[in-house]
Amino acid sequence: MVGPVRLVGIDGDDTLWRCQDLFDEAEGAFCELVAPWASPAELGEALALRESANRPLFGYGIKGFTISAVEVAVDLSRGDVPARTVQAILDVGRALLEHPVEVLPDAETAVAALARTHKVVLVTKGDLVDQQRKLRLSGLGKHFAHVEIVSEKDPATYEELLVTLECPAEQFVMIGNSERSDVEPVLAIGAWAVHVPYHTTWRSELVGEPSLGHPRRRAVASLAEIPALLES
Amino acid sequence: MVGPVRLVGIDGDDTLWRCQDLFDEAEGAFCELVAPWASPAELGEALALRESANRPLFGYGIKGFTISAVEVAVDLSRGDVPARTVQAILDVGRALLEHPVEVLPDAETAVAALARTHKVVLVTKGDLVDQQRKLRLSGLGKHFAHVEIVSEKDPATYEELLVTLECPAEQFVMIGNSERSDVEPVLAIGAWAVHVPYHTTWRSELVGEPSLGHPRRRAVASLAEIPALLES
Repeated sequence: MVGPVRLVGIDGDDTLWRCQDLFDEAEGAFCELVAPWASPAELGEALALRESANRPLFGYGIKGFTISAVEVAVDLSRGDVPARTVQAILDVGRALLEHPVEVLPDAETAVAALARTHKVVLVTKGDLVDQQRKLRLSGLGKHFAHVEIVSEKDPATYEELLVTLECPAEQFVMIGNSERSDVEPVLAIGAWAVHVPYHTTWRSELVGEPSLGHPRRRAVASLAEIPALLES
Repeated sequence: MVGPVRLVGIDGDDTLWRCQDLFDEAEGAFCELVAPWASPAELGEALALRESANRPLFGYGIKGFTISAVEVAVDLSRGDVPARTVQAILDVGRALLEHPVEVLPDAETAVAALARTHKVVLVTKGDLVDQQRKLRLSGLGKHFAHVEIVSEKDPATYEELLVTLECPAEQFVMIGNSERSDVEPVLAIGAWAVHVPYHTTWRSELVGEPSLGHPRRRAVASLAEIPALLES
């Protein structure tokens, strides 16, 4: 990288710990519960639309997912879904909130190594309490100088973070699995980004054309490569 | 106050804008919807218990309130509550999330005056997106140097905030309506607190014995008194 990077941001969900798989499994459980009234394809489509429509009001996270799922069940059943099924849908959401945290391979080693050479901050989006719980259970909290849980990862969010932490954009690098949230807005404000792939990507995080050739974008196959990359 | 205060924290809900009344009204609407199965007193009690039990998982905020309300309706109706009533309960939560923001008297003048002489930060708890929406609609955002939306207002939260903003505790004052959230934890870490009453207090925010005689506690009848108090 050109010039010294002083501040390192790292994404949480699907970068440091498993997340999207769990949502996919929850959606599967939801489809089984509502199977009497709609096919999995109809349900998946209706849920994605409802979540997207509710997002300005609900933001990201499990509680919003849960409420959207109940709304879809009421709608697609035309008001026939019994209360016990509603409770079972709420329990699917609760199971997500209570799920053990599975730290991804190399995450602990990479974050610990980075923390020895840089100021490292967690930059993650979703429900406040849920993200704090995941951080706590991950055991990674001790490596972070600062934790920022945000409602959206857009250029303005990153700019505000850098103002708070008093870091010029060219001395900041963001590491994460999402081109839309961890790479594009970071490149847009003049900072660096490192993409780390995850085996599945939430459809909301997909972008048409990743900025593959951007001079401030790097890509690695695994978190294990990051410490050496930052020293290069 | 003894020594100069450099950083001013202000609470949002029921300090800068109306909040608890709206939750009380929402609880009333919920009780009407579930009236066939339980009395308002039973419902109020069951809802408070459920919210409290769910709080470690849900945190504060409207989405958690909404899910707890549906759970109570399913329970107290012994599974009889129809899907349309479930949807109506979700709509009560949605109406809270969409409610116009009513800035309290003197809030705009007081915050603007404080921002001319101090670094002012909003310190508020609840759903991330909801609190950001309220701040945006309040029109008060331009006066804040920083916004911190937290999951709990305990001593550790305030200590972390002061580390981030690089301010010693004795140079920080917190202003708010809640003895439990805005006054006690702030006094506990060696900072100053100013209590501003609101006409109603959420039962979760009540404390047994407010620290009335504490040397770093002040109380005012209205936000209008704050700028002069900080100059004294």
